[in-house]
Amino acid sequence: MPRPSDSSQDPSVDPIVRRVAELGLVLPEPPRPVAAYVPCVRSGSLLFIAGQIPFRGGTLMAMGPVPSRTSVELAIEAARQCGLNALAIASAELGGRLSLVRRVVRLGVFVASDPSFEDHPKVADGASQLMLEVFGESGRHARAAVGSPSLPRGASVEVEVLLEVSA
Amino acid sequence: MPRPSDSSQDPSVDPIVRRVAELGLVLPEPPRPVAAYVPCVRSGSLLFIAGQIPFRGGTLMAMGPVPSRTSVELAIEAARQCGLNALAIASAELGGRLSLVRRVVRLGVFVASDPSFEDHPKVADGASQLMLEVFGESGRHARAAVGSPSLPRGASVEVEVLLEVSA
Amino acid sequence: MPRPSDSSQDPSVDPIVRRVAELGLVLPEPPRPVAAYVPCVRSGSLLFIAGQIPFRGGTLMAMGPVPSRTSVELAIEAARQCGLNALAIASAELGGRLSLVRRVVRLGVFVASDPSFEDHPKVADGASQLMLEVFGESGRHARAAVGSPSLPRGASVEVEVLLEVSA
Repeated sequence: MPRPSDSSQDPSVDPIVRRVAELGLVLPEPPRPVAAYVPCVRSGSLLFIAGQIPFRGGTLMAMGPVPSRTSVELAIEAARQCGLNALAIASAELGGRLSLVRRVVRLGVFVASDPSFEDHPKVADGASQLMLEVFGESGRHARAAVGSPSLPRGASVEVEVLLEVSA
Repeated sequence: MPRPSDSSQDPSVDPIVRRVAELGLVLPEPPRPVAAYVPCVRSGSLLFIAGQIPFRGGTLMAMGPVPSRTSVELAIEAARQCGLNALAIASAELGGRLSLVRRVVRLGVFVASDPSFEDHPKVADGASQLMLEVFGESGRHARAAVGSPSLPRGASVEVEVLLEVSA
Repeated sequence: MPRPSDSSQDPSVDPIVRRVAELGLVLPEPPRPVAAYVPCVRSGSLLFIAGQIPFRGGTLMAMGPVPSRTSVELAIEAARQCGLNALAIASAELGGRLSLVRRVVRLGVFVASDPSFEDHPKVADGASQLMLEVFGESGRHARAAVGSPSLPRGASVEVEVLLEVSA
């Protein structure tokens, strides 16, 4: 098995996939929907990716509201994991060619929040920064970040991603 | 007045409308917005349907948070009703030709939730399953399901639907 | 410096910008994102504007849940301010030519809500009415209005706007 870092040397590797490897990131197996829907749907040049929760290695890495049960720091990391899971789905859909992503259009970020929580943007930046690191300027997106009393499976964060992709 | 089941025999009836009848479903009168907006907007091939709450016969069939005031089972049924209301709007917009729907692209599902609730996907499946039953493979969609502390009119569920339609 | 009302006389002024002035509205400086994202992204003919909170003159005009900490009346005004902030972003993106907006497609309205709150549509109308006043028929949009336990910076309302614009 080639190690992930190998792809940073291989010219046949998709340049964005290479950047992912250079960043030390490994795309997980695309998470499977936890219910009756599909991971993503393409309509024209838009790729709608279903809301992702922070599964890492099969378990949720952050559960419960922020900050009473999950710290802001962990929630940031969880938002990043949600973003990584979304990219894994995009990569699978695009046959491993993440450079077909022309633009990250929009993130929808839901943070399981105590009523007094105000730092949703800080949490959401975990996913936003990932997009900037992976896609550079094309990773800059519009965003809505809001609170929820609770999320599927008790997750602390859910992130929905909308991409524009090449035909 | 023809009975709904009649349409399953009539070849002039739109095939998806016929399937709706075969499923024993009756599309309600398209719900009217409860405020200053319209039921749906088409932009290019995308049809954005406004968030639907579970009106059935003029009253909300499920109110209050899940599970303390509405059971999961009733909430599932309510999500299905929201989906049916959205399809009624789509049908009206498309002149009764639901087969112009090329794809169900995305559902946004908001569940009025107690802070400890974790089964949002199960509730959202009420709407998702309806789309699969009515549209088959074309009914498979991306989805975000999240919790809300409260929803318009005290509804237990709100569902927003995005469709791709033929030109 | 010309006063805003002057633009209502000037034929070189964009007709929608003129209507904004006639309504007595002044578009603020486009609010800058409070984190790692951009104010808006265009994809094809769609312009996705990031979720806006009710900054007015640099401070949030409404904080905390409705109705316990912010009245419905103030929240309506806050939703209108969110809409105005979104229009300021659209105007900047379109080089001051708001008449390039062909349609307001969708508003997503999040209201920081007490668990018993039911009047989210009334609050959301603050933003919806603004769109109707500014754009007339083209301002009619689909909408989802829901509750949140808390929003960024403690805001009472967040509004996300999707526009269709001319090529």
